[in-house]
Amino acid sequence: MTRSIGDFGLIGLAVMGQNLILNAADHGFTVIAFNRTVAKVDRFTANEAKGKSVVGAHSIEEFVQKLKKPRRMMLLVQAGKAVDDFIEQLLGAGIEQGDIIIDGGNSHYPDTTRRTKYLLSKGIRFVGAGVSGGEEGARYGPSIMPGGNEEAWPYIKDVFQSIAAKSDGEPCCEWVGDEGAGHYVKMVHNGIEYGDMQLISEAYDIMKRGLGLSGKEIGDVFAKWNKGVLDSFLIEITRDIMYFNDDDGTPLVEKILDAAGQKGTGKWTAINALDLGMPVTLIGEAVFARCLSAIKAERGRAAKVLDGPKPEFSGNKEEFIANLEQALYASKIISYAQGFMLIQQAGKEYSWKFNKPEIALMWRGGCIIRSVFLKDITHAFRQNPDLENLLFDDFFNKAIHKAQPGWRDIVSKGALWGIPTPAFSTALSFYDGYRTKDLPANLLQAQRDYFGAHTFRIKPEFAREKYPEGQDIHVNWTGRGGNVSASTYTA
Amino acid sequence: MTRSIGDFGLIGLAVMGQNLILNAADHGFTVIAFNRTVAKVDRFTANEAKGKSVVGAHSIEEFVQKLKKPRRMMLLVQAGKAVDDFIEQLLGAGIEQGDIIIDGGNSHYPDTTRRTKYLLSKGIRFVGAGVSGGEEGARYGPSIMPGGNEEAWPYIKDVFQSIAAKSDGEPCCEWVGDEGAGHYVKMVHNGIEYGDMQLISEAYDIMKRGLGLSGKEIGDVFAKWNKGVLDSFLIEITRDIMYFNDDDGTPLVEKILDAAGQKGTGKWTAINALDLGMPVTLIGEAVFARCLSAIKAERGRAAKVLDGPKPEFSGNKEEFIANLEQALYASKIISYAQGFMLIQQAGKEYSWKFNKPEIALMWRGGCIIRSVFLKDITHAFRQNPDLENLLFDDFFNKAIHKAQPGWRDIVSKGALWGIPTPAFSTALSFYDGYRTKDLPANLLQAQRDYFGAHTFRIKPEFAREKYPEGQDIHVNWTGRGGNVSASTYTA
Repeated sequence: MTRSIGDFGLIGLAVMGQNLILNAADHGFTVIAFNRTVAKVDRFTANEAKGKSVVGAHSIEEFVQKLKKPRRMMLLVQAGKAVDDFIEQLLGAGIEQGDIIIDGGNSHYPDTTRRTKYLLSKGIRFVGAGVSGGEEGARYGPSIMPGGNEEAWPYIKDVFQSIAAKSDGEPCCEWVGDEGAGHYVKMVHNGIEYGDMQLISEAYDIMKRGLGLSGKEIGDVFAKWNKGVLDSFLIEITRDIMYFNDDDGTPLVEKILDAAGQKGTGKWTAINALDLGMPVTLIGEAVFARCLSAIKAERGRAAKVLDGPKPEFSGNKEEFIANLEQALYASKIISYAQGFMLIQQAGKEYSWKFNKPEIALMWRGGCIIRSVFLKDITHAFRQNPDLENLLFDDFFNKAIHKAQPGWRDIVSKGALWGIPTPAFSTALSFYDGYRTKDLPANLLQAQRDYFGAHTFRIKPEFAREKYPEGQDIHVNWTGRGGNVSASTYTA
Repeated sequence: MTRSIGDFGLIGLAVMGQNLILNAADHGFTVIAFNRTVAKVDRFTANEAKGKSVVGAHSIEEFVQKLKKPRRMMLLVQAGKAVDDFIEQLLGAGIEQGDIIIDGGNSHYPDTTRRTKYLLSKGIRFVGAGVSGGEEGARYGPSIMPGGNEEAWPYIKDVFQSIAAKSDGEPCCEWVGDEGAGHYVKMVHNGIEYGDMQLISEAYDIMKRGLGLSGKEIGDVFAKWNKGVLDSFLIEITRDIMYFNDDDGTPLVEKILDAAGQKGTGKWTAINALDLGMPVTLIGEAVFARCLSAIKAERGRAAKVLDGPKPEFSGNKEEFIANLEQALYASKIISYAQGFMLIQQAGKEYSWKFNKPEIALMWRGGCIIRSVFLKDITHAFRQNPDLENLLFDDFFNKAIHKAQPGWRDIVSKGALWGIPTPAFSTALSFYDGYRTKDLPANLLQAQRDYFGAHTFRIKPEFAREKYPEGQDIHVNWTGRGGNVSASTYTA
């Protein structure tokens, strides 16, 4: 008879799984480890986990038997079929009513919603937890975003809040919400991560091609920025990357192929934004920028036949770099404002109650997008939980106001120099559109009514008997055509 | 016994359906008309269709009986459930092997693929035909994009090519491809339509807020543009709209609510682009611009607290307007290049053989995006059907080269003036990214390897034994951490 000694079980011994196990063991938990390729279990317990409170299991049954009840079992396997397969295996391996299965992978939130319901019907509590932080985070404190069956929370809170990162003493892990809410927030986190990385890449490109700075000089700029408003994990590692030289003493980064993938959570965020009708333009552009990077060979051919201006910098470099910092900062504010707009809309759409200050807190430490900046966001939402938009907060309002001249300078220079700034530019266009009472969509509505009788509404200030407020109005723009309105043909 | 006198049957008497019937009747076909609300049938035959070769049917059975075999039956009903419902009703109303059902609504292409297969299994030939042109087009010649079961094409070609628009004597209707290919091309057409409308709206906004032009003056600019490279239906109707005054002598367009919907095909195109990994940024921004327009009340509140510069124009207005024309033209070239990139990729993904010159031809007349410009696209693809990208064609290469200075001036001015130009800007960023051999995605790949051990590849010119070409490489950027690579954690 196997003794039930395990506080916590984890299946999936790739880098994230291994490091989470070591992290939990360091916090006093006895962890049972299992992996589909069983040889990996012994390799892990004999090496990385040697001397730690980690016990290997060589079958799924043994894994289940070795855990104390209610069992706390975390999957860190490839999103998709592997998760469903392991759930079925666990169901067949003797788990019991009240046991808890946690999916810590990058699952798509509708799958998590489906699994929560399915396992509820079997008496098993399911949690979909987004985990961010990469290898380092997993090992020394990730950000964890759990959602699903809230009954599970009291049983997993101790493990999760122990292994999670701390920010000013607060754990970067709180209950997010029902069903797929945890994975949803992790998805938006990753979308924002796409955006942050794209913004940094544009700043690097402008310094390299616009100012002609060396890798070392660019590293120095990131080092400096990491002491100011941009202080964050991604700026910090960018500094390290710029300083990291190949054997020949030149920056390795310049030799890395500029073709990025985008099949994951960033894409899901952009698609969800389109589905919910929220203008999350910066993440959208960041995903598309990766798509464009991926067609490297075609770009090579295009570079030979498509001409452009040569960047010619004149003026004060220090000042220009200060403007660039402001452009990055302001664009980042826009990206986070858009991300929270999306989360807010998702809360309405899926009937999930989100705690916005807690979300910002969870992102403050441990995860890839951790930054000083997120303290200000936490502060803004704690001060006013009903804040309609981050841009209405005094701190961010002032920050973006101050950043404007530099931001506008960078976007206009990028356009004139021929250096692409899709994320900086879309952020600025969003800002200018968002603060515009009367956008040119009135023309667009007139066009739709002209060619398709799609009707329009009147601005309240111009409403009168002929054009009443809130009514669908059709005008015969041409003097031709019948008295019809489109009901099946919606462009 | 009902006599079978009908050449063609049409179900759905909203504006598009009515007009298509009148169009077919004008071309000598006897059309059987049916509508779910049967009263509408009699109203139509007694009024709009009076004296034409149009015969009403008062039941679905009567509709079927009145048609000659093989029956050619077109649905113009709301996309979604109504299409499936009518298909089932027709199947139950005595249609026979070899009969043809055509869905002329705005169905989503995967539904058309599904229906083609389903009806094939019943011996019925199904066609999903995109129809564009609004009320006017439907009445006097739309663009028709049919796909599905190709066996149907010889039987419907005469009706379709008769009622379709003609461009230089060629009908704007050709067989597009298998399964959902017709509706797919219509979807991309609509996406491009979203883009064109957004570009025109941005030009209008810049003239109004940047130059301070009156509605009449803006109308004059569009009138002039409609005689040049931008000559197109949408520019023409924009001219008319700008000239269309309300009873008080001021342009009606200024009173129309600037809140646009976006639940349809534009969104589908953007989502499909994300799914296929194609950087169709302009349509994406156009959809997001509609989303932003829709939150009108929030924008009103934002306008009160978010500040920006005041546009101050100085210089030569004529010259600036010429630049604006070039910005619109160049952005449009980018949008169509992106659209054809998407179609090309879809052809690979879904194994549909697309005929690119014919697609451009179908869009040349009848539809909303019809323009002189599409003649040049038809020409480019006819000259070189294997053209990798529209931007590689000599004509467009020269055109965009010539347009560049003006385009860059407008984008930079928009940024400095605080007038949003999301579509102009993203087009320029795409162009500058597309013609860049080395994009900053190398830094992004380094970041991903740094925080998640996601690996990178080396640029071929820097490959050596330590960093071989085509291999997934991981570097220990920090000097810490184990010898692991991420296999489950893909950001």
